[in-house]
Order: sequence, then structure tokens, then C-alpha cells
Amino acid sequence: MIYDSIIIGKGPAGITTAVYLKRYGYEPLIIAKDGGALVHVKEIENYYGFSKITGPELLERGIKQANELQIPILEEEVLEISFENVFFITTTKGIYQAKTVVLACGASKNRYSKADKFEGVSYCATCDGFFYRKKRLALIGSGSYMAHELSVLENITKDITVFTDGASLTAELSEDIPVVVDKIEAIHGEERITAIEAGGKTYPIDGCFIAIGNASGFTLAKHLGIALKNNSIAVDQNYMTNLEGLFACGDAIGGLLQISKAIGEGASCATAIFSYLKKHKS
Amino acid sequence: MIYDSIIIGKGPAGITTAVYLKRYGYEPLIIAKDGGALVHVKEIENYYGFSKITGPELLERGIKQANELQIPILEEEVLEISFENVFFITTTKGIYQAKTVVLACGASKNRYSKADKFEGVSYCATCDGFFYRKKRLALIGSGSYMAHELSVLENITKDITVFTDGASLTAELSEDIPVVVDKIEAIHGEERITAIEAGGKTYPIDGCFIAIGNASGFTLAKHLGIALKNNSIAVDQNYMTNLEGLFACGDAIGGLLQISKAIGEGASCATAIFSYLKKHKS
Repeated sequence: MIYDSIIIGKGPAGITTAVYLKRYGYEPLIIAKDGGALVHVKEIENYYGFSKITGPELLERGIKQANELQIPILEEEVLEISFENVFFITTTKGIYQAKTVVLACGASKNRYSKADKFEGVSYCATCDGFFYRKKRLALIGSGSYMAHELSVLENITKDITVFTDGASLTAELSEDIPVVVDKIEAIHGEERITAIEAGGKTYPIDGCFIAIGNASGFTLAKHLGIALKNNSIAVDQNYMTNLEGLFACGDAIGGLLQISKAIGEGASCATAIFSYLKKHKS
Repeated sequence: MIYDSIIIGKGPAGITTAVYLKRYGYEPLIIAKDGGALVHVKEIENYYGFSKITGPELLERGIKQANELQIPILEEEVLEISFENVFFITTTKGIYQAKTVVLACGASKNRYSKADKFEGVSYCATCDGFFYRKKRLALIGSGSYMAHELSVLENITKDITVFTDGASLTAELSEDIPVVVDKIEAIHGEERITAIEAGGKTYPIDGCFIAIGNASGFTLAKHLGIALKNNSIAVDQNYMTNLEGLFACGDAIGGLLQISKAIGEGASCATAIFSYLKKHKS
């Protein structure tokens, strides 16, 4: 089955986009691992209609709303998006196809800013792995997204060390992959990164890949070569990225990180997709 | 007292703007006669957080939210806005002052489209009354906004006939003003309006003023000489009109007439006013 739209994210922006699309007569699918930023919000007082509500309560009301409109929601982690006539969304559990995709997966919280100033640091194995053929690589991360990036890098070099930076390893890796679970103490280098220090030891490297947490909108967009702006996904006035059919809204596109803004954009984004799908009927 | 901001409208856009401003530490005042378009909406299914809710219920929740933040709401009809160092808001009950004003009073529903194609038709006595010195005028309307426009026109000409177009007259007028309560049957003219037909009679006129219902954002903006775009109020990326300190958001500025969009704009508009007030501290 090819969905009219796959929406990545089940926070306010994602649910609103899906609700509008469904009511426009389309079949959306929502994929998200969790509710994103709102999961940890204890008190919301500035969302119209609620004098006071918690993030988890509001998220739950949103899910219920989608359920009542029979919008399917999959609790899966998205690992990669690719495009070949249609979009292919690869998750931890399967591959799904859609005519359009909406990145409504929140602001990027998966950056590793200590490394950002160095050359030789990448957030995308598919994009940059090739530059490190048979070189020594560090891969920072601990979950399934890290494992996905590792599987790409393993075809390029055998010399890879995984750094969890103090997090416990949740991905299952083959035993011959060295894993350092200590906190990272320092990153060395002049212009280019040269070594990582952790647990009192220094590991010389030629390059470093970051794959912390889930693949954020930011990292997914980077994989696809999407234009960015101030570390957010750049969109036009129709909430479309520079890749035809790939849309984004909510915190993922930056600006005011507010529920009100996110749902306003969700409604407008869905309306733009409605026009897009009508024009590209096939 | 000079308010930081007077917000005209107590629908989603107005309340959201006020809630954000209050939480930014400012003192907003809301003035509105009613809840606007939502008053008549029986079923809302596309507003995030509610599987199903009626317009009046949602409006009431919004009012409650403003009340709990001690934001004052006046149930008064706004007749005119003027600017002289500060903004002066004239209502049916008083005059209020503010550093900024937000037009969040919904889409204009007060147009009289049958007359729109003719020259000699105006929505603003203050703007255009002067052109009709000692001429024969028709004034279409029945409430206090019509009475307000009449008071302006009476200084210009004595030959004014009020047409309620079938509505019952709610404004109190002096007895020497002729009032036609019949439905308007036809508007005559070539390029220019020349006569109005009602109750089987034809009334020759030189010009016609429209003052139906409340003064909408559209008419208030016209009075101030604000730039319009497609019959909506034109704003820049900070939701400011071409008059410094006068902002607008929600249905009043056109586009998608949706609660989601309105509250997204309310949040962004308040944030822009926050910056504006900080810059113009005096």
C-alpha cells in the first residue's frame, strides 16, 4: 500500500497535519517512537482551550483524536527516508511507502555540540561515510539509530569504535565492535578532529559520526540532502522542503517552539499537501 | 491608564494573543462584543486536543483561561480606533488607551456585496464623508455602528436615509432621520450608484455608506487608512499593519479560516508585540 502521506511525529504538529489530511479525504499514516518534547512538560497554560494541562495529557488527547478518525499510528523508530518515485520510510520494524512525507518530529535535540566545531564530524553515514574508506572512525550513540549508522559505516571501514558517552548500550551489536561506555572527557584536534578521550584513555581517529537518540528531523533531512536553515529544516511558504513531496512543520522547522505555532503550521501544511496531491494525481 | 495592548476580539486569536502577552509580563485588555464566527459552530473536530467540541464551549474555555490569568475582558462594541501618540479605542461605553492594538476580530462579514461594484459606495464615513457635502446619502445598517457612522455623516449633509435592509432598527436615532426597514430590492446605477429600491419605492442618492453589524476589523482598518489585501488586513511577517503599533491576526488577516491557524498567529503576534514594546519603552 502506498499512503497519501506518512507523517513522522505524533506531537501537536503531526497529529494536526494527519487530522486535516484525513478530513480532506486522504489516508495518512503516523509513525513516531514517542511524543517528543511534550512528554516532559509538566504544565501548559498557554494553549487555547486549556487553563492548565500537562504535556502527556495533551499528547494523549491528540492520540485519542487521531484514533477516533481511524488514523493509524505506528510506534516505530524511523531510521531512514529515501525517495525513488515514491518515498520509502525505513523503521526498526519495516519499510513503508508514501506519496508525501511530513517531518513533524520536533526540534533536533541530537546534536553533539562539543564536536560541531571540528572538521571530520558528520551526522550522516550515508552522506559522508565514503570519505572515510579504511580510516579509523568514532561513532557516538547507543540505540538503534546508532546501529543503523554502524551498518552503513561497516561497509566502508573495519576500524570503528562506538562511544555511548555514558549511556547504556541498547542496540545489539556484533561482539567484534569495540564499545566505550565511559563519558567522553575531551575531543581533540586543531581544525580537524584527531582523537576522543574517554575513561582516561585517548582514542586517535580520522573522523567521527554522531548518531545520538532517534534520527531527528534534522538528521533525516540531512540524509536526504535537504536544505537547512539555522539548524532547522528549511521550507517554503507551502511548508515544502527543497525535495518535492517532502514537507515539514512544527518545531522541526524552527522559529517559535510553541504548540500554538505547531498546530497552525500543521493545518496549513495539510492544506498545502491537499493541493499538492490533487495536482500530482496519478 | 494606558494598556500595553488592547486586543479587539475574544475568539481563539484574541485570547491566545492576550494569554501570551500576559505571560510575557504585559497588561493586555480584551474588548469584544461577542465570540465571532465560533458562536454558531456546532461541531469542531479538527482542533488539536479535542476529539469533538462545540464553538460556544471552546469560546467559554478560552474566556475562563483569560479570567484565570486576570486578563480583563470588556463586552463592548468597538466603534472606532484612532491614533495620536497612543491608540484611542472608542466603544459604545467609553474610550480606552493603549500602546499597541491587535485586530483579532475575525473575518469581515459586514460587506454588502450587491453595492460593491458601484462607485460612490463607502465603508467609512470618516474617510469618505467629505466627498458628499450637502449630497443625498443612503446609510445601510441598523445597530450602534450605523448610528456612529450617522453621527459623522450628519455634520456633512442633512439628506440621509437609513436602510436597515429588513433588519429591525436597534439603534436609537433622532426622529427626523428617515428609516426604511424594508428589504433592499435593487441597487441602481451605471458606474456610479444612483438609487436604492426598497419596499416598492426608489430612492435616488448620490452616495451610499455601509455600516452593517459591528465595525469589523476590515472597517476599523479602513477608518485608519490601513493597507488591505484581498479584503483582509495586510500585515508584515511580525503581524504588524502599515500603521506602527497596530497588529492583526487570525481570520482578520485572511488565509485559512481555522482555529489552528488563528492561535498560531496569536502566539507569534504576541511575541512580535513583546519585542515591539521592549524596543519602544518610554
